[in-house]
Amino acid sequence: MDNKVLIMGHKNPDTDSICSSIVAANLVKSFGVETKIVRLGNINKETEYVLDFLKIDAPEFIQEVKDGQEIILVDHNEKMQSVDGRDNAKVLAVIDHHRIADFNTIEPLYYLAKPYGCTSTILYEEYKKAGIEIDKTIGTLMLSAIISDTLLLKSPTCTKSDIEAVKDLEKITGLEANKYGLDMLKAGTDLSTYSSSEVINLDAKEFSEGEKKFVISQVNTADIDDVFSRREELEFAMEKEIADKKLNLFVFVITDIINTNSKIIALGNEKELVEKAFGKELDDLDSMMLEGVVSRKKQIAPPILEVIK
Amino acid sequence: MDNKVLIMGHKNPDTDSICSSIVAANLVKSFGVETKIVRLGNINKETEYVLDFLKIDAPEFIQEVKDGQEIILVDHNEKMQSVDGRDNAKVLAVIDHHRIADFNTIEPLYYLAKPYGCTSTILYEEYKKAGIEIDKTIGTLMLSAIISDTLLLKSPTCTKSDIEAVKDLEKITGLEANKYGLDMLKAGTDLSTYSSSEVINLDAKEFSEGEKKFVISQVNTADIDDVFSRREELEFAMEKEIADKKLNLFVFVITDIINTNSKIIALGNEKELVEKAFGKELDDLDSMMLEGVVSRKKQIAPPILEVIK
Repeated sequence: MDNKVLIMGHKNPDTDSICSSIVAANLVKSFGVETKIVRLGNINKETEYVLDFLKIDAPEFIQEVKDGQEIILVDHNEKMQSVDGRDNAKVLAVIDHHRIADFNTIEPLYYLAKPYGCTSTILYEEYKKAGIEIDKTIGTLMLSAIISDTLLLKSPTCTKSDIEAVKDLEKITGLEANKYGLDMLKAGTDLSTYSSSEVINLDAKEFSEGEKKFVISQVNTADIDDVFSRREELEFAMEKEIADKKLNLFVFVITDIINTNSKIIALGNEKELVEKAFGKELDDLDSMMLEGVVSRKKQIAPPILEVIK
Repeated sequence: MDNKVLIMGHKNPDTDSICSSIVAANLVKSFGVETKIVRLGNINKETEYVLDFLKIDAPEFIQEVKDGQEIILVDHNEKMQSVDGRDNAKVLAVIDHHRIADFNTIEPLYYLAKPYGCTSTILYEEYKKAGIEIDKTIGTLMLSAIISDTLLLKSPTCTKSDIEAVKDLEKITGLEANKYGLDMLKAGTDLSTYSSSEVINLDAKEFSEGEKKFVISQVNTADIDDVFSRREELEFAMEKEIADKKLNLFVFVITDIINTNSKIIALGNEKELVEKAFGKELDDLDSMMLEGVVSRKKQIAPPILEVIK
């Protein structure tokens, strides 16, 4: 067991999970709590761009935590998205911007959630309130996370608080959000080196509601057709995931970050849930176009969860 | 449906639930959110003392909320302790100091929890951070809640933050915590006008873990023997609750606020859980003395939950 408190984001970590882990570790350090930052999966290309830009090493990878390990969670709370072994670990704190589900503790804890576009925006406000300096590195990590989660402030998850944080962080870092952000987002759209199995797992989140278990996986792109041209091999990989994980549904979301639309592919014995959730039929290729839809958290997961409920 | 956001504590409201509802309503008002304060049960004598002292009316009683009602919860999150109809309401925010359990939402929300002795201490810090004035009334509500939940700072749930808040609130209100607090606590120990069924429901909280459902009910007293002299009628009322609510266990806790000890009475088909939890046997009167134990949240519920788990 690690004597230090472990701080971590969700499985299949995205830029917010990695950046907010580092930002949160620095915050709690100022309160006198020493932590070790860890990650639960590979660094994606977008996050790699950020870490390279800042010349920061990626946090250490871990698979599971031992019994009694003290942990702090950022950017998630649902058990399926969390570290293996969590049930017997001790969650000291959670900083998150998602719905709360399948999260139970025996003892009271610190829990800070706000319905913002990004965990780093919540952390930004905590730094401000506590009067802790945001240096260029911490500021760039926050800025990167917010740009990533809000798709350069264009996602419907984006709030006034996210926008205000970005304005201030541009000043602190000297970076132009539009320029730096587009470079960062584009770095994340390069899927050419990934196998189809890797593509559908790059940013996959598992949900459960009632008896149903499903995955929503999302990739960003500047060209939907380019990703969709790999449909056959992607569907093959999706079917394998469905069988391996006994899923009722696998939704693969291809999001156009330039035009802010998404095309989804839905497979599984409950794929009609998607048709009910969005009020339109899947075409012959198990896909449908969702105009203006870019947010899994706000636009894709809730209607599916509602239909199941 | 009420157009205003409803703000409320838990069922069987205690002083923290009532006072923190009022304190939280005043806080969110300063952020521009109009709320209506409601309560889910009778005002107990301790809380009555506070409201009489401040010449404040008790919040309106409600039984349930309608579909789609927007609500803010203070001092609890577990479903069994919450308003009826919550599953179809929309929880906008939670401010709490308990473990998180059986709490699920579809959408992201504000959630602020800290492992403090009292919800009002969390609110006190929010007022300070936001630079919002704490006037004498709000200050007295906060002070009363903290004194109630921490038994005049003597409970093991009491933290440095609670103590610091009380120090500052004494200055703000001009009250002496020890004097005002003991008067308030003593007002709450008068059980003479209550039937035994009322006594065991004054501050009863329902828990579920796995398949097990149990209630821990607590009363404060300056004389344990005085309350225990009603054992036979209290046990009769407890057996009725067990049958009506299909409970596995009912734990009635009589807490001596002067000497900070508790005597418990345990009934139900799983009363051995209590013996396992505390490592000692119930005597012939289904009771045991727990020296130094005063906190349901910290000293009574967790060992029982652990044994079930």
